[in-house]
Amino acid sequence: MLLALDAMGGDHAPASVIEGASIARERHPDLKFLLVGNREQVEPLLSSRKNLGGNAEILHTETFIAGDAKPSLALRQGGGTSMRLAIEAVASGRAEGVVSAGNTGALMVLSKFVLRTLPGVDRPAIASLYPTLRGESAMLDMGANVECDARNLFQFGVMGSAYVTALLGIPRPRVGLLNIGSEDLKGHDALRAAAAHFREIGEALPLEFHGFIEGNDITGGTVDVVVTDGFSGNIAIKMGEGTIKMFSEYLKSAYRSSLLAKLGYLLSAPALSTLKKKLDPRHYNGGVLLGLNGVVVKSHGGADGLSFANAVSVAYDLIGFKLNEKISAELKLPALSPSIASD
Amino acid sequence: MLLALDAMGGDHAPASVIEGASIARERHPDLKFLLVGNREQVEPLLSSRKNLGGNAEILHTETFIAGDAKPSLALRQGGGTSMRLAIEAVASGRAEGVVSAGNTGALMVLSKFVLRTLPGVDRPAIASLYPTLRGESAMLDMGANVECDARNLFQFGVMGSAYVTALLGIPRPRVGLLNIGSEDLKGHDALRAAAAHFREIGEALPLEFHGFIEGNDITGGTVDVVVTDGFSGNIAIKMGEGTIKMFSEYLKSAYRSSLLAKLGYLLSAPALSTLKKKLDPRHYNGGVLLGLNGVVVKSHGGADGLSFANAVSVAYDLIGFKLNEKISAELKLPALSPSIASD
Repeated sequence: MLLALDAMGGDHAPASVIEGASIARERHPDLKFLLVGNREQVEPLLSSRKNLGGNAEILHTETFIAGDAKPSLALRQGGGTSMRLAIEAVASGRAEGVVSAGNTGALMVLSKFVLRTLPGVDRPAIASLYPTLRGESAMLDMGANVECDARNLFQFGVMGSAYVTALLGIPRPRVGLLNIGSEDLKGHDALRAAAAHFREIGEALPLEFHGFIEGNDITGGTVDVVVTDGFSGNIAIKMGEGTIKMFSEYLKSAYRSSLLAKLGYLLSAPALSTLKKKLDPRHYNGGVLLGLNGVVVKSHGGADGLSFANAVSVAYDLIGFKLNEKISAELKLPALSPSIASD
Repeated sequence: MLLALDAMGGDHAPASVIEGASIARERHPDLKFLLVGNREQVEPLLSSRKNLGGNAEILHTETFIAGDAKPSLALRQGGGTSMRLAIEAVASGRAEGVVSAGNTGALMVLSKFVLRTLPGVDRPAIASLYPTLRGESAMLDMGANVECDARNLFQFGVMGSAYVTALLGIPRPRVGLLNIGSEDLKGHDALRAAAAHFREIGEALPLEFHGFIEGNDITGGTVDVVVTDGFSGNIAIKMGEGTIKMFSEYLKSAYRSSLLAKLGYLLSAPALSTLKKKLDPRHYNGGVLLGLNGVVVKSHGGADGLSFANAVSVAYDLIGFKLNEKISAELKLPALSPSIASD
């Protein structure tokens, strides 16, 4: 299996990318890499990683997309950049997937333009795993689509459910639509139409439709897949990150508030470091751009080597699972077309 | 000052309401109450609270609105209920404000119908304080309006800023519009139009417009007032509550995971209990229905006496501040009309 890596994307690129490739190759001995980036910078890093010798090829380019570049500009001026060339390697069939820690908006726009959407998918979405009281769940869309109609939400549910089957091994994931109340009358029309469609044909699909859920159900782990528009999804996930940060800071200052508390911290420290790891967003690294003709994984911009390796593992698992073939097949079910009209 | 209390609203009513009134009266010796509810249940509770003697009157009714009643049904069949009579006491001028721990949707629908909106306000919104890294901030709307146009968002900013001036004493609050990126091009049209309007005339108002903020800025305390539609606001606040719950549960199991960790917990316990109080949603009790001809405060349904007293204090502060007069005056500024057209 060959993966294209955007060697120049992310705050610590290219070092974190090469380190991540090396760690991932230890986990998956059948992995090979196409490292797209500046040869002068990549080559010395590569030569210090013995397990990549013979398994990583460099595709040289001197340009890359800045972390703060506007997606529209990336589309017009992104030709020949490391991100674009890495995506093109998937389009040409040279690579089976691409991983980048670069600009999310640019990655989405370029991937959509170069790879196009899967048959049956109107719009791609960004999905990611996150921690819950019961373990892990997935949420989508995380920010690619500000407004979504019922068809989009339905397709997100199908894609998200294939995604958690691939990554978490849940054969029939529970899917919930994020709303502001669990009653049938709450929320937007699009939510009600999507819910009706899931109820109508959900049984024909490898998922279990749970109905509407509320914001506190996200971390409650009420469902395996939370489906929402990119506006609410982005706000919810960032509110979760911000709340964990606030709680951690409050906790730190509580521990600093007295000598006894400090001593207590020292005794509890090993247990607390496990907790910290569990809630660390880097552990959940590897947002996936679902619904494209090719596997595209977005690593966190601040990813270190280990974190980038986690994103590579996500790409590896999704390709092995033949995620896109499964999504296409499910969205081709004949029952789907009549009841949710195209916009 | 006379406040009408819905003595029958909430999980622990009427006991929690009478206890809350008694605690609030200790704080504010000029407060008097109209207790709307079943005399048979209220009277014995009242007679055990000496500081309410002569300062609390009972308005008897045998009906009340169920916690899970549909708001539309509450409007059609809510006549004569404790909630409706309490709101009517404000409309008739008998009381200066109302506090209820009952059904939020019913309280909004009945208050809108009985009290009407303030001049200059298209739609009322639910606002509440919440904890941040820097202290406290306010967010609105928390769920009354699923979709909002630019005028609504602008009015929420003006109302929310008067609200934090009243409760937190901040003379010129920083106001931010919740979005999925801080760049000018992100998000809905309504957000961009509202931002343009704040930039245009914000200086004439006692607030400072910060621009767009993201989900992690909510708990970051980047602004004093977070303005958003009721869909995103409701999801964000519940995601925050859910994340705090998850973190607390993880923390508990970390402390239980070893003997040393348990010992550490015992030593840190006093410091941690301060933290717990800081993040307890009951501490932030008293969501306010802003934009109505009268002060309407919603207490948490599960409020105990102390928590209900906090909601009463919120009503007391808002009335003392003459919140509604201030909101009306600010929304009457002549600069407001031309640039944001009515929908």
